Amino acid sequence: MKKTVLIPDSFKGTLSSEQICSILNERIIEHFPDCEVISIPVADGGEGSVDAFLSALGGEKVFTAAKGPRFEDRTSFYGLTDGGNTAIVEMAAAAGLPLVGDDKDPSVTTTYGVGELLLAAAKQGAAKIVVGLGGSATNDGGCGAAAACGALFYNKEGKTFIPVGKTLTEIHSIDISRLKETFSKTEIITMCDIDNPMYGENGAAYIFGPQKGADKEMVKMLDAGLIHLAEIIKRDLGLDIKNLPGAGAAGAMGAGMVAFFSSKLQMGIETVLDTVSFEEVIKGADVVFTGEGKIDSQSLRGKVVIGVARRAKKQGIPVIAIVGGADYDIEPAYAEGVTAIFPTSRLPQDFSILKEHSAKNLSFTANNILKLISSII
Amino acid sequence: MKKTVLIPDSFKGTLSSEQICSILNERIIEHFPDCEVISIPVADGGEGSVDAFLSALGGEKVFTAAKGPRFEDRTSFYGLTDGGNTAIVEMAAAAGLPLVGDDKDPSVTTTYGVGELLLAAAKQGAAKIVVGLGGSATNDGGCGAAAACGALFYNKEGKTFIPVGKTLTEIHSIDISRLKETFSKTEIITMCDIDNPMYGENGAAYIFGPQKGADKEMVKMLDAGLIHLAEIIKRDLGLDIKNLPGAGAAGAMGAGMVAFFSSKLQMGIETVLDTVSFEEVIKGADVVFTGEGKIDSQSLRGKVVIGVARRAKKQGIPVIAIVGGADYDIEPAYAEGVTAIFPTSRLPQDFSILKEHSAKNLSFTANNILKLISSII
Repeated sequence: MKKTVLIPDSFKGTLSSEQICSILNERIIEHFPDCEVISIPVADGGEGSVDAFLSALGGEKVFTAAKGPRFEDRTSFYGLTDGGNTAIVEMAAAAGLPLVGDDKDPSVTTTYGVGELLLAAAKQGAAKIVVGLGGSATNDGGCGAAAACGALFYNKEGKTFIPVGKTLTEIHSIDISRLKETFSKTEIITMCDIDNPMYGENGAAYIFGPQKGADKEMVKMLDAGLIHLAEIIKRDLGLDIKNLPGAGAAGAMGAGMVAFFSSKLQMGIETVLDTVSFEEVIKGADVVFTGEGKIDSQSLRGKVVIGVARRAKKQGIPVIAIVGGADYDIEPAYAEGVTAIFPTSRLPQDFSILKEHSAKNLSFTANNILKLISSII
Repeated sequence: MKKTVLIPDSFKGTLSSEQICSILNERIIEHFPDCEVISIPVADGGEGSVDAFLSALGGEKVFTAAKGPRFEDRTSFYGLTDGGNTAIVEMAAAAGLPLVGDDKDPSVTTTYGVGELLLAAAKQGAAKIVVGLGGSATNDGGCGAAAACGALFYNKEGKTFIPVGKTLTEIHSIDISRLKETFSKTEIITMCDIDNPMYGENGAAYIFGPQKGADKEMVKMLDAGLIHLAEIIKRDLGLDIKNLPGAGAAGAMGAGMVAFFSSKLQMGIETVLDTVSFEEVIKGADVVFTGEGKIDSQSLRGKVVIGVARRAKKQGIPVIAIVGGADYDIEPAYAEGVTAIFPTSRLPQDFSILKEHSAKNLSFTANNILKLISSII
């Protein structure tokens, strides 16, 4: 092997994609000391996404002031790569659930700081901003972020205010003309791997509200707020987003990114592959290693392994998926370009036991694959 | 791939070695339709060993009358291969635990029928007899088998009798001259994978007595019988077998095979590899596939996977081990010649769940290995 590319998703709950790259890299160099190894730890949009992109692409982490989820002053950050042309913003850096500690309340939290990060990146001159959703403490439909970028939300008295979850119903009209101007030369792409609609029983409030601290009453109230917001967006901005898949992501930040920032929502892996110019990177590679915690029917929708395989297949490059576990209904993965799948669960044991050995078992699996490869080429 | 050899152990409790060969063969032919596949399902010495040898080597199964474990008349069998020169006798066919049903009692059961099978094979002209121990209902130290072949056991009144577990202490002297003559031109090799001594706390009675139906009192009595037998053997036959590893196998049949039949005890896999002329069989093979239910520190002592690997290594042939599970302390396996190890446990699940999917999971694992091989050669 002269060249390999590593592009694994994290193994949720056990290993980060950076850790996986590092373990695989070590094993490859052991067996093929002269092999060029390119590591692209996959950012999933949540916490750590900026670091993952910068580790794959190089660049700098820019620290800047931005409000936290309770409008408190904080220092947050975004990533700059591609000579400053592309910025990476992870929502969790300014509106993440860990930032509120035990004091969770999605009726009062804001994405205002996320807007400040977007604004800072745009003002710095980034032509393209990649936004990672996920891990949010909010349910404001992205109104806070929009307000930070110049959108005006009026109440029925004609006064502007910054809507949060519990005050979405007070929005009487929206004006985003100034925001549009600010971002007129900026392309914004939002990473979004979930399908949930903006509101309703599968929407942001009902599905994700409880883990952010909402009780039954609050969920109802938040849902009503999102319904109201969707109506105003339809009337004032001319966009019908109520059934848009992914609009319900991150407290309906998905909806806000589309409605206020003219962003498109895109599977995270597609965004990563585009951003790293994957087709260029894998040219001449002997093998691409990918993987995820568990490959299952969900994966086949187009998560990391399948996203990677589809593009590698076009160049006829073998794709080896190393996975925590492999479900029984994954035969279609092969037709998508996955060459072979190797689970790391080396013993018939429950996850509660195996997870303690994740790093060791990944290393073991990689070693066996590499030993097999080196014995037959 | 032009030629492969399959030589797996069974996955205890889930798949027989024949089933494993069949699944692997099917997958190989799917990916390499012109590949020559040689299947050697490994006999472990227990029930099914004759069939396994015959399936690997060809030959015939000879049915003949032989006493069962309670001296009842039965039809039993042995295998003949190599043009009648080699016979295979599995002890379980005449003294197996399933033959006594729920009526277990190792103080009264006999290996007499096993002796009849040995005698039939020798009289038929077999120059070599391979004997598989394992799965026995007896604790007679092989005295029954010896008696069937002409050995004389005298009590203190000078009368001959056929000792069983509870009457071993009544043996006053032994004369095996007639037996020796009968088998003077026959080489007997006994497959034995366990190390237990003849008697004592790790001996036949204490370790294996209980599963054959002995309670604490009976275990003590059986152990005393074996101590007495060892003394008489030392005095009359000049053989000190009390510390011989494996003497305690199969109700001390291991001891009897050595003392009465001048047999050597040999690891089962070594016997199989010798009998099938393994070195000849693998010449020109691209890969050897082996495996076992669980590869662990026990395996490293020289069970199937390691036995196979040691010999394949001499010819530089890669050995792929497909295993139910792979323990954490098996690194030394690679130095013995194992190229790569792939567990079939595809999901982090307990054995009680995974065992239901053994065949499917083996097929899945084999498919991935073969897909990887075909993508890189």
